[in-house]
Amino acid sequence: MITKNTVKFIQSLKQQKYRNEHQLFVVEGRKMVEELLRSPFEVNYLFATEKYLHEHPMDTSLMELVTEVQMEQMSGQDTPPGILAVAKIRKMEINSDEKMVLALDGIANPGNMGTIIRTAEWFGIKQVVCSEDCVELWNPKVIQATMGSVFRVSAVYTDLRRFLEESKSNGKAIYGALLEGENIFKKEGRWAGGVIVIGSESHGIRGNILPLITHPITIPRAEGSMTESLNASMATGIILAEIMMKS
Amino acid sequence: MITKNTVKFIQSLKQQKYRNEHQLFVVEGRKMVEELLRSPFEVNYLFATEKYLHEHPMDTSLMELVTEVQMEQMSGQDTPPGILAVAKIRKMEINSDEKMVLALDGIANPGNMGTIIRTAEWFGIKQVVCSEDCVELWNPKVIQATMGSVFRVSAVYTDLRRFLEESKSNGKAIYGALLEGENIFKKEGRWAGGVIVIGSESHGIRGNILPLITHPITIPRAEGSMTESLNASMATGIILAEIMMKS
Repeated sequence: MITKNTVKFIQSLKQQKYRNEHQLFVVEGRKMVEELLRSPFEVNYLFATEKYLHEHPMDTSLMELVTEVQMEQMSGQDTPPGILAVAKIRKMEINSDEKMVLALDGIANPGNMGTIIRTAEWFGIKQVVCSEDCVELWNPKVIQATMGSVFRVSAVYTDLRRFLEESKSNGKAIYGALLEGENIFKKEGRWAGGVIVIGSESHGIRGNILPLITHPITIPRAEGSMTESLNASMATGIILAEIMMKS
Repeated sequence: MITKNTVKFIQSLKQQKYRNEHQLFVVEGRKMVEELLRSPFEVNYLFATEKYLHEHPMDTSLMELVTEVQMEQMSGQDTPPGILAVAKIRKMEINSDEKMVLALDGIANPGNMGTIIRTAEWFGIKQVVCSEDCVELWNPKVIQATMGSVFRVSAVYTDLRRFLEESKSNGKAIYGALLEGENIFKKEGRWAGGVIVIGSESHGIRGNILPLITHPITIPRAEGSMTESLNASMATGIILAEIMMKS
């Protein structure tokens, strides 16, 4: 049985401060833990309740049994799924050889961030570059919404302006999702490789980034539609679908 | 000032049971209330705090002032935005003249439901037909996620199987979003009018609906992608983008 101190330690990882300090993050639920175990991430702890193991037997030396109460204390979910892992954060580097890179300027909502990474992987994006103020990748809600893509897509937080300046000076196209720009559905021919920039939910692409956009692109709305905008992750998915399936 | 009983009554509308009984629903926040007031929905109550009205003066005879405490009691949000309206549910009828109709088979997540309606409006869908077990339209989380589209798109809950049978016998194409089907990005020519069916988050299109699909369609994933699926609202948005912008 695990100690009170271990439970407290795992609980502390609900806070970004302690995730940073210990370079650890928490993963919950059967599917997500299975994806984690299949990934190159180093797993430090694996906890399950007796009930969970009875329903889903697992053969791994890492596994430690915990009580329902301990699991409730460690879990960040209203209904703890009964299995919880703690893994080591991996430092990732930007791979500039990727033909198409996705760049996020201030995405704040964890669900959007996770959905963007999940959808990016679906359409073949391997490199995501995030402004430093994007919501943290190891936030449990982000991890959950990626449905496992967080273990396979490289998402690096960096000075986005500098990254785009370098990409631009290397001759890359910098596509920016804006309210006015080239209609993505009317594109003739193929899309050149480059960086696709998506702005934040509340402010879009910000003023320090805008001048670096070489190719403004837009998702037109139907005639007569009164909607003001699309959700940020939805817009990203629709743009990736158009660009990645036709580049 | 409003009475305790009024506060209790508004609180009761947090439950679907009482929304059904009174045929009323709650809308919160400045943008959403503005959209409501611009819509044909009948507004029964409009409440705001002094602080809210000081920041956003409003000239309407409907408005009743409430204390911060009363607003907190009535609000369903962690941080009450300070303005809350109660409106009458409108009975909507299916408009079968629409060229393209969106049909939802068991969408359970309120955020997905709302995002689907918002995105549907963006791409010009005016009629959504929901299976009776889809999450309720007047759930505050659904309303919030529509960003106002709920006031303009007709979403009708009905026996989906029967609706599809009728549409099919009227010669309409019944498109079904499936893991195998026609690649939506490779479509040559235009899409014929019909009904686009989206399945639930956990089960996809269910067994009683599947035999009615005349045109299975699919969103292919990039080669080598390990993602198992897209989020249900994301898949809907990507399909609507392809079909509605090219039909």
